Amino acid sequence: MSINSALLLLTFYYVAIVADAMTAALAAGRRSMDWMGVAMLGPITALGGGTVRDVLFQHYPLTWVHNPALLLITAGASLATIAIARYMHHLRRLFLLLDAIGLVAFSVIGCNIAAEMKLPFLIIIASGMITGCVGGVLRDILCDDIPLLFRTELYATVSIFTGLVYMGGQRLGAPHDLAALAAMAAGLTLRLLALRFGWSMPKFVYTDTLH
Amino acid sequence: MSINSALLLLTFYYVAIVADAMTAALAAGRRSMDWMGVAMLGPITALGGGTVRDVLFQHYPLTWVHNPALLLITAGASLATIAIARYMHHLRRLFLLLDAIGLVAFSVIGCNIAAEMKLPFLIIIASGMITGCVGGVLRDILCDDIPLLFRTELYATVSIFTGLVYMGGQRLGAPHDLAALAAMAAGLTLRLLALRFGWSMPKFVYTDTLH
Amino acid sequence: MSINSALLLLTFYYVAIVADAMTAALAAGRRSMDWMGVAMLGPITALGGGTVRDVLFQHYPLTWVHNPALLLITAGASLATIAIARYMHHLRRLFLLLDAIGLVAFSVIGCNIAAEMKLPFLIIIASGMITGCVGGVLRDILCDDIPLLFRTELYATVSIFTGLVYMGGQRLGAPHDLAALAAMAAGLTLRLLALRFGWSMPKFVYTDTLH
Repeated sequence: MSINSALLLLTFYYVAIVADAMTAALAAGRRSMDWMGVAMLGPITALGGGTVRDVLFQHYPLTWVHNPALLLITAGASLATIAIARYMHHLRRLFLLLDAIGLVAFSVIGCNIAAEMKLPFLIIIASGMITGCVGGVLRDILCDDIPLLFRTELYATVSIFTGLVYMGGQRLGAPHDLAALAAMAAGLTLRLLALRFGWSMPKFVYTDTLH
Repeated sequence: MSINSALLLLTFYYVAIVADAMTAALAAGRRSMDWMGVAMLGPITALGGGTVRDVLFQHYPLTWVHNPALLLITAGASLATIAIARYMHHLRRLFLLLDAIGLVAFSVIGCNIAAEMKLPFLIIIASGMITGCVGGVLRDILCDDIPLLFRTELYATVSIFTGLVYMGGQRLGAPHDLAALAAMAAGLTLRLLALRFGWSMPKFVYTDTLH
Repeated sequence: MSINSALLLLTFYYVAIVADAMTAALAAGRRSMDWMGVAMLGPITALGGGTVRDVLFQHYPLTWVHNPALLLITAGASLATIAIARYMHHLRRLFLLLDAIGLVAFSVIGCNIAAEMKLPFLIIIASGMITGCVGGVLRDILCDDIPLLFRTELYATVSIFTGLVYMGGQRLGAPHDLAALAAMAAGLTLRLLALRFGWSMPKFVYTDTLH
């Protein structure tokens, strides 16, 4: 990876964890958690996807163990959200954009880590999805909700699509940087189109009880 | 293990993960998850017990990382369930049988892995129970339910019983294959009797609040 | 660590896991779980914090894999609670005290393990908090509650405070034993004062919906 594109990806990573921590703080506020709960839910949401990925693939030390400042940054972003919460609904569009940037950046980073470990292709795509999506699942479980991921618009789909463009581009001979940028641009476009036009997967509704 | 009994156990394993993925799809449908949610809940349920076991005992690489086709098989079984869901209530008895076969097969496989790692006897039994039961717990958490495991008929008990017969048989000098088959037959019998006669553990009902 | 203070910490550890398993049994009883569910929720609650810590920091084998008697002790304590549940509300104050002792003992033990692994200071404090608090979070998730940790009085705060006194004391040159005892005494005092006077963190209440 060139220095420029590594810097870009790193920038996106920090934007992503800060945006994730801030949306997690709002979820905590909807459940009337206390400030300590807010300060914990932010890091869990922002760093949880990468943590689960690293545990599953035995990729130690964990990112935040190696770089503990990530705990302070995400906890700080969560706490700062308390102060600016009253203005957050004006920033709704901005946060959806930041969240989408985070999703595609996490997906590329997750694929990249699995690819460097020489894991199989399917696992590389799964690694991107785990990195991009599991933090939000942890947030929803801790808020006692059914994870949004399982019920809403093309979130996991965007992650898989980003990973496929990223890995497919490299297989087709594209330089790594170009493949990463193209994948993030393509994934971001799909996500924003899905948000704009309300695209979603069909739902499976089943009412009989087996057990 | 002889080739024949290894093949039998492998067959049971595939029956078990497919049956688990299909019942997970129905649980997803009861919560109106979308198709992507269905395609994720199946593999999590079918492969989650073995994954937690392998992380706890540092038994890497995980089964589905080593053999990624398992992800496709379980996701595919979940998605196929959407198409045949309308007929599923006719298959209720069949699925309870497949689920029971899966439970005892998972229990034997889990015990076997811990035994090969020379872990203590209690941990071997626990490994069988984790392998057999944790996938369903993950499914219930992601569906925002109290895990059925903690509230219903002799599910974990069957897993422990299967493990005890399997390990006890080998300690008493039975060949490995015979012990595995006897344990699965005994566990399956107990499970089917429990279902048939509604056997269950006594419940602990406590209404005072400590906290 | 001197033999005396190691023994004291070990005693506190056993008091803590037994007290945790017993309060978990009451939580299970409030959800009408069956006896097997009670016997599982106790060990998960009592040993879950240390387990998550060890997985995150790749500190294998897990405590209960190395010492399986811990599974029997905690499962047994949970089951015994069923018999004495009717007297438990008389013991409310005693259990709050035992729970507080457990919290500070777990925190010191968690810090100590991370310190021996030469992990960074922030991670050492986080290790104490994970060890002290995550078991209760797992209990609440399995009971389908929003974790109390995120909503109530100074629980995680006490854990962080205990860790800071413990590590700070050693940095200031105090012998290890003295620092451990001072930290536990300070943490216990803060916890009991918080319970006595109803001290709590401010809550963050947010009612707008972003997603």
